[in-house]
Amino acid sequence: MKINFKNFLSSHKSTTKMGDFQELKNIEGLQISSVSAGLYKKRRDDLSLFYFSEGSNYAVSYTQNSIVSESIIWNRENAKNNIKALVVNTKNANTFTGEQGLGSLDDIAKTLVESLKKLEHENSYEKTKIKDILFASTGVIGEKFPVEKIKSNIASLVSGLRINQNKLIWLKTATAILTTDTKPKVAFSEIKIGDKIVRIAGIAKGSGMIAPNLATMFSFIFTDADISSVVLNKYLNKVLPNTFNAITVDSDTSTNDMVAIFSTKKIKNKKLNTISSKEASKFEKALKTVCLELAKQIVVDGEGAKKFITVKIINSETIERAKNIAFSIANSPLVKTAVAGEDPNWGRILMGIGKSGEKFDQKKLIIKLGEFTVAENGKISESYDEEKLQEYMKWDSILIEVDLKQGREHYECYTCDFTHDYIDINAHYRRS
Amino acid sequence: MKINFKNFLSSHKSTTKMGDFQELKNIEGLQISSVSAGLYKKRRDDLSLFYFSEGSNYAVSYTQNSIVSESIIWNRENAKNNIKALVVNTKNANTFTGEQGLGSLDDIAKTLVESLKKLEHENSYEKTKIKDILFASTGVIGEKFPVEKIKSNIASLVSGLRINQNKLIWLKTATAILTTDTKPKVAFSEIKIGDKIVRIAGIAKGSGMIAPNLATMFSFIFTDADISSVVLNKYLNKVLPNTFNAITVDSDTSTNDMVAIFSTKKIKNKKLNTISSKEASKFEKALKTVCLELAKQIVVDGEGAKKFITVKIINSETIERAKNIAFSIANSPLVKTAVAGEDPNWGRILMGIGKSGEKFDQKKLIIKLGEFTVAENGKISESYDEEKLQEYMKWDSILIEVDLKQGREHYECYTCDFTHDYIDINAHYRRS
Repeated sequence: MKINFKNFLSSHKSTTKMGDFQELKNIEGLQISSVSAGLYKKRRDDLSLFYFSEGSNYAVSYTQNSIVSESIIWNRENAKNNIKALVVNTKNANTFTGEQGLGSLDDIAKTLVESLKKLEHENSYEKTKIKDILFASTGVIGEKFPVEKIKSNIASLVSGLRINQNKLIWLKTATAILTTDTKPKVAFSEIKIGDKIVRIAGIAKGSGMIAPNLATMFSFIFTDADISSVVLNKYLNKVLPNTFNAITVDSDTSTNDMVAIFSTKKIKNKKLNTISSKEASKFEKALKTVCLELAKQIVVDGEGAKKFITVKIINSETIERAKNIAFSIANSPLVKTAVAGEDPNWGRILMGIGKSGEKFDQKKLIIKLGEFTVAENGKISESYDEEKLQEYMKWDSILIEVDLKQGREHYECYTCDFTHDYIDINAHYRRS
Repeated sequence: MKINFKNFLSSHKSTTKMGDFQELKNIEGLQISSVSAGLYKKRRDDLSLFYFSEGSNYAVSYTQNSIVSESIIWNRENAKNNIKALVVNTKNANTFTGEQGLGSLDDIAKTLVESLKKLEHENSYEKTKIKDILFASTGVIGEKFPVEKIKSNIASLVSGLRINQNKLIWLKTATAILTTDTKPKVAFSEIKIGDKIVRIAGIAKGSGMIAPNLATMFSFIFTDADISSVVLNKYLNKVLPNTFNAITVDSDTSTNDMVAIFSTKKIKNKKLNTISSKEASKFEKALKTVCLELAKQIVVDGEGAKKFITVKIINSETIERAKNIAFSIANSPLVKTAVAGEDPNWGRILMGIGKSGEKFDQKKLIIKLGEFTVAENGKISESYDEEKLQEYMKWDSILIEVDLKQGREHYECYTCDFTHDYIDINAHYRRS
């Protein structure tokens, strides 16, 4: 079957072109496939398989919502340090589906193990066992899990596995995991560790119910570097706070979401089995770039978003305080609607700082919009220029900076504006 | 000047009629007046005076935002247990206005003291001193406080004072304190304590930046019962948690707001100088009714609101837990947009329960929309009927009930749906 970019993107209201995305290359040891299992009314890819021919180490971080998907419950009960496959479905969250939901995963896992047998035998791959499979589900909560539709598409999923992933294949898979997003989210990095080239490729989905602590978001990151699960976990915990946990669309946190990093172990480089060497820093930096790039793409494609907003708190006594103030501003519907209206209404930023409950001296605060100081010394800035600010607010990317003048710590988070389209998308979500 | 209801309401996009409001009567010892000081581009009443000819006891609760209006700073520094006047302005919040803002209040207070001299002399009223005056300001943050416009209208404010307040006068004053609200908010109660009739009249304004702990809200409640400030404060603290602190429009909390209760001491009834007698319970009940009525009117008139939502958590181990879960649901943009879209998307209610971080057993939860059970035993209800639910979601008032099945405590809070109009109102707020 010939794959066409426009074709698989047609159900996502997107005006994106292939050229809008960076180059992506193959990750050795990974095979991917996605098909339409008919989960949506409109035909689109909705079921994906990530297969690791020689197994994969992995680390994962799940939603902090106390109600979680049956898929997450399955993962916690089954998959251990080394896995063979990840199955991702959209449209149905498999949450609050009880025994029907959990039992379905058992059924699907059995079907997948069977379907993989021929491929594994012919290529002498290690055999997949039921407990080697991870699941990720996203979509509507509480509806019966469509086990039959998924099971009946497992065989075609397996037969469609691609050993070599080019940009088109990555974009097709990244599109298959989307829900209300309009664009696939991809990022890639290639670095030299010692004398070996290692690659990191990542895909993600958003785009509502995004709040810190991994809410309503999938991100799957793959590397061919050989890194143990324990060390992968350390890398993940180091990069999360300033990437996926630094974004918010609407302060709601979902029941389903996960960020996972997989190592196919194909490129042998023992130097990465620590997080404190010089080479490890290089890997960490590349991983952070991939994660931050994906996190920002989620915000840019936030439901109804027209503008990207960076909220930066500097010179705080503690990171925790900077973070609380940053999110108090970034989660404020009043700040977000003002940005949507291109109104430099800095009083709402002030309101956001105040409602955080954090300590600061209001006479010392300096509030800036982009390069423009709007408030200082406990009042509107002497240099305040409404005309210039209105011009600035027309930009696509807005920086809100608050200087607390009390210490040396800082924190930056990312959000988007709040528009009519957010309402439209979420008022009728289940009917798609 | 002849006062006409339609006339003073014309700047508030309202379709309200006089008959939509309950009957309101005079509070002895209170005189009120409101004028246009030209604070808005469009001519409308924006400055009000509440004058207590023989002084007033009072109790007040302010916003918990750590940045507060200079008007609140003034009140905390000056007015003690007994006051003579309350001056309320809209359009300018007098927040982050520094010395200019605080100094303005000093100026206005002096002007008011002078303007009241003739009236006080002629009627042998007690003389008003500068420190007997309270201020309340609401509107845009950080803009220069319009002291001259206000000062030059103090004389006409004083000359317009009305000793007898009928329904029309109450509605005119209730309209003068509004910002983006479309309707005045009034409530009234009359009860017999011993052989005396005592009255409680209240007005309020909303309607965005409403969150628990008195965010962006004014409410001024007047009684002619003789109650000390200390006891008024006890009554206020008893009724707040389930009235004004039980509402949320957008989770944002403002820098300015206050709920105050005033006693003109005109009806002598010593039995109310406690909060534990049978008569005191009667008064508390009437006060709670007035406050709850005003609080609900604020939510109904929430920015862009089309539907009123009650979130009720029952059988919780603690009130605190019930409250956290209730607000986690009520503040969720995803729940509020689903209600706007008339979609019985109970998965989002579940998400809201989970993100509260509170303890509960998800297998025991019972979630109801109105009379319809949607989820129980850890999954969708056997009796779930999409058609009936879609019919129910068309109602103007929606009840979300969550039974935690873990104890005997309950908490109820109130919010509204999240619509296009919220975005419109808040995107261009400063330009009104």
